[in-house]
Amino acid sequence: MKTVFAPRGTTEQIEEGRVFAPKFDADGLIPAIVADAWSGDVLMLAWMNDDALARSIETCEAWFYSRSRGKLWKKGETSGHILRIIEMKIDCDQDALLLRVEQAGPGVCHTGRASCFYRSVSLREPAGHMLVLQFKKAEKVFDPDAVYGEHAAKDKTPE
Amino acid sequence: MKTVFAPRGTTEQIEEGRVFAPKFDADGLIPAIVADAWSGDVLMLAWMNDDALARSIETCEAWFYSRSRGKLWKKGETSGHILRIIEMKIDCDQDALLLRVEQAGPGVCHTGRASCFYRSVSLREPAGHMLVLQFKKAEKVFDPDAVYGEHAAKDKTPE
Repeated sequence: MKTVFAPRGTTEQIEEGRVFAPKFDADGLIPAIVADAWSGDVLMLAWMNDDALARSIETCEAWFYSRSRGKLWKKGETSGHILRIIEMKIDCDQDALLLRVEQAGPGVCHTGRASCFYRSVSLREPAGHMLVLQFKKAEKVFDPDAVYGEHAAKDKTPE
Repeated sequence: MKTVFAPRGTTEQIEEGRVFAPKFDADGLIPAIVADAWSGDVLMLAWMNDDALARSIETCEAWFYSRSRGKLWKKGETSGHILRIIEMKIDCDQDALLLRVEQAGPGVCHTGRASCFYRSVSLREPAGHMLVLQFKKAEKVFDPDAVYGEHAAKDKTPE
C-alpha cells in the first residue's frame, strides 16, 4: 500500500496546525537530521522517502532512503546498530525532520566513528584560499571492516 | 569573484582527508544543520550555495540561500538575530554541514519560536492513519510581526 500523508494546506495550517503534512522534494525525499536523544549530539543527516518515513513512524526504528543505491534501507540492518526513535520532530514549514534516537551501537558513521561530523572547517579564511579540515572527536569506536564487511564502501552509512 | 572549492577527489580523500571539498546538489546547494553551540539544541535546517558558504567561512556569520526567494540572505539581516559561527563541521562524504552557533537573538524561527522544531510527530501509528502533531517547547520567544514586519510571511526564516 502506498502511504499517503496529508495534503499541504495553507501556510497557517502547515506552521500552526496539528496535521502532519510533510513536504517531499522533487525527488520524493525529505531530509532527516539524526541526533542522540541523551547527549544531544548531531550524528548524521539522511534522507527519507514516504515509505521510509511511514516505516519509521510505525516501528520507531529509523528507515532511510539511500540516494546512491536508490533503495530503502533500515539503519542497523547489516551492522545491528539500529536507531530507536525516541522523538520525531518536524520543522515550521514541514520540510525537514529531526529524529532524537537511542543507539543500539557505538556509532552511526560507516567510517567507524560515533558521528559523521568528525571534521571542522577552518574559519575566517578568504574566498579562494585552500580550506583545510581539522579532525575532532574522530577516533573510531568500531571497526567498519568487521561490522560492514564487503558492504563497507557502498554507502555513507551502509546497511 | 566566483568562489571555488576543492574538487571532490577519491572516496578516501573525501572521507579521510584534510581538504575541504563540499558537494553541492543539482541545484548548487548543500544542507546546513544549525545547532546552538552551548545548549546543543538543533535550531533549524537551511541551505547554502557556494557564495553563502564562502561568506559564512569568511565572516563567521551565517549566510544562507533562500530556495523560495531564489536569493542569498544573511540570517539576522532584518531581525538582528545574527548567528555567529563557533564551529562549522562537515560530514563523512562532505555533502552536509553542521553549524554550531551563538545566537544574537532569542530564537531563529520566523514564527517567533526558539527553534523551528517545535512539534513532535505521533509515533507507532499505522500507515494511512491521520498523523497528528504535538506542540513541544512551542512558546513564542519574540513577536515575529514586530521583528519581521511586512517580511514575516516571505520565507521560513525570513531575512
